[in-house]
Amino acid sequence: MSPSEPREPGAQFLAEIREQPRALERLLEREADFARVAAIARERGTTIRLIGHGSSDNAASYGMYAFGLLPGWTAMRDSITLSVYYKASVDMSGSTVIALSQSGQTRDVIEYVARARAGGAFTVAVTNDPASELAKAADEVLALGAGIEQAVAATKTYTNQVAALALLAAHAADQGPRYVEGLREVIGRLGTLIPELEQVIVPLAVQFSFVGRMFVIGRGTEFATAREIALKLIETCRVAAEPLTATQLAHGPVAALDPLFPVWAIASRDETLPSVTEAAGRIQAAGATLLASGTAADAIAGADHSIPIPMPSVPLLAPILSVVPGQLFAWALARAKGLDPDVPRGLSKVTLAL
Amino acid sequence: MSPSEPREPGAQFLAEIREQPRALERLLEREADFARVAAIARERGTTIRLIGHGSSDNAASYGMYAFGLLPGWTAMRDSITLSVYYKASVDMSGSTVIALSQSGQTRDVIEYVARARAGGAFTVAVTNDPASELAKAADEVLALGAGIEQAVAATKTYTNQVAALALLAAHAADQGPRYVEGLREVIGRLGTLIPELEQVIVPLAVQFSFVGRMFVIGRGTEFATAREIALKLIETCRVAAEPLTATQLAHGPVAALDPLFPVWAIASRDETLPSVTEAAGRIQAAGATLLASGTAADAIAGADHSIPIPMPSVPLLAPILSVVPGQLFAWALARAKGLDPDVPRGLSKVTLAL
Repeated sequence: MSPSEPREPGAQFLAEIREQPRALERLLEREADFARVAAIARERGTTIRLIGHGSSDNAASYGMYAFGLLPGWTAMRDSITLSVYYKASVDMSGSTVIALSQSGQTRDVIEYVARARAGGAFTVAVTNDPASELAKAADEVLALGAGIEQAVAATKTYTNQVAALALLAAHAADQGPRYVEGLREVIGRLGTLIPELEQVIVPLAVQFSFVGRMFVIGRGTEFATAREIALKLIETCRVAAEPLTATQLAHGPVAALDPLFPVWAIASRDETLPSVTEAAGRIQAAGATLLASGTAADAIAGADHSIPIPMPSVPLLAPILSVVPGQLFAWALARAKGLDPDVPRGLSKVTLAL
Repeated sequence: MSPSEPREPGAQFLAEIREQPRALERLLEREADFARVAAIARERGTTIRLIGHGSSDNAASYGMYAFGLLPGWTAMRDSITLSVYYKASVDMSGSTVIALSQSGQTRDVIEYVARARAGGAFTVAVTNDPASELAKAADEVLALGAGIEQAVAATKTYTNQVAALALLAAHAADQGPRYVEGLREVIGRLGTLIPELEQVIVPLAVQFSFVGRMFVIGRGTEFATAREIALKLIETCRVAAEPLTATQLAHGPVAALDPLFPVWAIASRDETLPSVTEAAGRIQAAGATLLASGTAADAIAGADHSIPIPMPSVPLLAPILSVVPGQLFAWALARAKGLDPDVPRGLSKVTLAL
């Protein structure tokens, strides 16, 4: 598209949301790389240090659970500040670093990797650009294959990052084939889910045009989804949307709720459901509008709006589906607010520093 | 005080803010316990797993830096959900668990400790109640000595938790005496700082009466402070206040700013200052009101409001001072909004579950 061509606001963002099934297919073409890197990680270091900013850091939240639940490894979102800025001398041997960056150009992520590699860590770059500086700095590269992402707000890169972390953790736990099969099923489901959700979510989002603040709650494997949905709402809709675990909500923020402060609750059909259900009750008691989504949306009795998501055969892959309502909601709400979700004010696609 | 006695709104909250120097003195009386527990941790496990909810989890953010910078140990805010709800089998040998709970009654924190201890971790309870169930579940107890906290929003417990983590990390790095001395100095500075800040902050907070949303930014050792100030604003003032690192702000949320969306920036005189200064420039470019505090508040050129904090001789102890402006601001803003900060709506002092 030439710069002078007239452009529908949000056209890129929507096109990339719709492209997610194909982007995931491209990731699966590289599946053999994940088996190989997982085998090295098993030898070199089973303490997983995930790093990244923005959506990449949200995907890292998912990685903590994928590695904890599948191979039973300790995974953490590590501090770039501690290493790169404060230059703390933390022992990195026995660690595998997974550095997430769409562009592979993020300065402090590259520097973290260089320092960690020098300190004995096994370093893996997960990026859309396998020729990037980040890829060169790391021992191994896992190419995301999401393709060029033009909208400033990430969508297909995020879902491919989540899938990549799931695949790597699955191979580490000798469950690679099951997860490859599971991802194929998720790709198929996405193909029908996206157009269905578009029909439902556009009229729903319009009802939130007045909203300036929201909480997005989730727990466990869906906390990453809550973070990612909140970030989409902040950057494309200029809504002060804060992600919270269901438990964090109870420890303070519930006091801020009122009828003009809606809450989006992601309910998963797993062991965290009681805490999300309990939080939903508190949200309703505060008179706040409640939007429930996720694989257990129907378990949230009396929600004002409900967006159920089908449970895939491999439950740990549900977050790839459950983020889509948030992406579409952000697209539709931005347009309802008269904003262009392709070009959030004050942002650029590649954040080089600090 | 009897329940029927008339009570000034926020009187308990303010009394406990003012009590912080004395509460810290009581912590120091137990200094020998910290040396002993640090010595055991050095033997049993130098991977530090910090757990807690609300303010306790904010203190844990500080702990990540204290252990990373002092003994160079890897410290993480671990997932209670992964262990207690999903029952993931993560290897806990070689780990020291530091469980933070004011009351020592938080159910899932107690259960986490029980599971971790059974799994081979060295477990330490850090609590105001050394006879609590949490204290009984852990191998060792570090009593905070903050005394009974009556206001729902924690203040003196938080600063004592930060001091406790600093002391433990210092002993782990054979710097116990230096930190004990440093804490004595901080206690002295707090004694003059609190009344000075009260004079400045009350008229300042009134100017924010209209505010419904804010970002609070900080980085590195002061990110915990940003989280804690945001939580005070949410729970006592019903402001949608989200804590962000300076870098997170650049990766999306900056797009949401406008003149009615103020930002509180905590600037530290350390290696993170350039990133906070850069973020401040973006905040000002968006036309948002900027309140700068911290040991490098004066380095934020053109801030609308500036609350400088003296740099203590031991820089890592600065967060004990720099949280106080946020506590006082929350107290004053709640009153300006006609709310009673002692009794946030929908909260109780002890959150047992989930």
